[in-house]
Amino acid sequence: MHTIEYQFSDKKVPVHFDAVFNEIYQLTAGAKLIILTDDQVFGLHAEKFSGYPVISFVAGEANKQQATVNNIIDELIKHEADRNTFLIAVGGGVVTDIGGYVAAIYMRGIRLALVPTSILAMVDATIGGKNGIDVGLLKNLVGTFRQPDFILYDYSFLSTLPFDQWVNGFAEIIKHACVRDAKLFAFLEQHNLHEFQNDHHLISELIEKNVNIKSSVVAADVYEKGERKILNFGHTIGHAIENTYHLSHGQAVSIGMVAACNLSEQIGELHFEEARRVVSLLAKYHLSVDIETDHEQVFEILKMDKKRSADTIDFILLSEIGRATIQSVPLDTLQKHIKEIM
Amino acid sequence: MHTIEYQFSDKKVPVHFDAVFNEIYQLTAGAKLIILTDDQVFGLHAEKFSGYPVISFVAGEANKQQATVNNIIDELIKHEADRNTFLIAVGGGVVTDIGGYVAAIYMRGIRLALVPTSILAMVDATIGGKNGIDVGLLKNLVGTFRQPDFILYDYSFLSTLPFDQWVNGFAEIIKHACVRDAKLFAFLEQHNLHEFQNDHHLISELIEKNVNIKSSVVAADVYEKGERKILNFGHTIGHAIENTYHLSHGQAVSIGMVAACNLSEQIGELHFEEARRVVSLLAKYHLSVDIETDHEQVFEILKMDKKRSADTIDFILLSEIGRATIQSVPLDTLQKHIKEIM
Repeated sequence: MHTIEYQFSDKKVPVHFDAVFNEIYQLTAGAKLIILTDDQVFGLHAEKFSGYPVISFVAGEANKQQATVNNIIDELIKHEADRNTFLIAVGGGVVTDIGGYVAAIYMRGIRLALVPTSILAMVDATIGGKNGIDVGLLKNLVGTFRQPDFILYDYSFLSTLPFDQWVNGFAEIIKHACVRDAKLFAFLEQHNLHEFQNDHHLISELIEKNVNIKSSVVAADVYEKGERKILNFGHTIGHAIENTYHLSHGQAVSIGMVAACNLSEQIGELHFEEARRVVSLLAKYHLSVDIETDHEQVFEILKMDKKRSADTIDFILLSEIGRATIQSVPLDTLQKHIKEIM
Repeated sequence: MHTIEYQFSDKKVPVHFDAVFNEIYQLTAGAKLIILTDDQVFGLHAEKFSGYPVISFVAGEANKQQATVNNIIDELIKHEADRNTFLIAVGGGVVTDIGGYVAAIYMRGIRLALVPTSILAMVDATIGGKNGIDVGLLKNLVGTFRQPDFILYDYSFLSTLPFDQWVNGFAEIIKHACVRDAKLFAFLEQHNLHEFQNDHHLISELIEKNVNIKSSVVAADVYEKGERKILNFGHTIGHAIENTYHLSHGQAVSIGMVAACNLSEQIGELHFEEARRVVSLLAKYHLSVDIETDHEQVFEILKMDKKRSADTIDFILLSEIGRATIQSVPLDTLQKHIKEIM
């Protein structure tokens, strides 16, 4: 285990890399622990949780809803969780998002540790203090900003991660490279998914690189007033299609990034050759680069996006690989281009 | 209108005293406004809200539950509320608590103004950034800490406040005097409710005094790690009996304060003559000072109190009028005394 402390404006968060799950016992200094996880992680790693009270819910984005929050709160009451209890959320992004949310609102806030078990959660969901649940099809419509007390990385969870979940996570990794790090982009072009799956040092290096990128962007702008918005690259359209077309988050964001690159060519300054490199890299990591959609329906959902302000919507465009800009796009401009970019 | 800015550790909050409701228009600088209120306030003051979109729910503590939050969120979606929308919560403590909570979680936080219409909300609920909802009988089990963007006092709302709601509010006023201000206690002994109801200057002076007391306590300890806990005087037992025995908040807290005074005599240093003065003042302001309860049931609910930590419960005791102490009382000590103090 080695520890890096990331300083956010609202809190300092220790991140323990290359750790073993059971080290949470020492890290929480004997506090009462309650594990929150989903039935898939629990089924695959039950032995890791032995001796701890466990609250488990049915895996999947479809359950990232208030009904699940209600059940978890009822369980916390039964377990007599109090303000000194440590909630340990162990799972992918759905578990860490919902766990972060419950820990933020139960008794106006209890202590929280995040243990990401998927690539997506490791490089993205657990970093930065955003939590939330969906309301119907509206992703993360409800939530808060609140940093966890610590984050623990135990790479042994990756041994059971399905292939499509590896792919899912690489969408966010490629996103980080696109918006902030041309060198990382080239590094990804030089390697492939098979290598990352089978080389502990390589994946561990990649994850730390990504935690650094995300943390540095978030640290400058925790409440997403400006710079942090660049992390929404690919997510504006991604969120609009994810639930509607039953896509994984990674596939939806990948298609969203392609659309954002197309828009960057049409109304921005991205060179077509750079856009082509992005599409190739996504395809190399088994991500979808197009989909049949009902453009009008997608546009209607976009209109409800959190990042919308009256008659414009904040879009993240690329000016080149490694450099993103935030652009306020009028809704009618978007409506005009939506057929061509998707 | 005159404005005082209160500096909390997390935010500076302008408080506009002696204002007129319609001044919110200038104070929000043309932002999109949505009014949240309950059907009672709406029925009595509809003319004040004309021209604004209004979300209204059925009045009463029984509705301070997740189901109401779900409905409000659905309405916000229909009204296309976004991150620049100002939610204006107009009502008593239930409305400002639930409004504060919704504004904290919808889109991870939208702007919020509080317009308290009851004495209780004016002197207590709106000050300090606590919001929340009940879970079953468990009061404020879910919520956050988050300061509003401003608070507006329009005393014309008091013209329709029922007598029992005046009484309700004076429980918190007497609480402030007990824990922090012996002069205020004497001031209350010199006057009576009838005078406060009929003298604009007197009630306005009283409310500002109370806002000052509560703000100064909160400013020193926003997240209730220490000093702020003194504001829970009377609330530990008060919360335990409020929903179970269908009491108003004020009546429950009044009985809770009497019990806390009795406990302060028995395990603390409060002189019986001071305890008698507290009981007399509560009775003078038409507050209940005793009730028939099932002591075992009350004890069971106390065990789930948010302020409990493993085997003790933080109790606020008086050492004298105007001076409170926080004491960690073992659950078995409390169980032993519960029959004598209530």
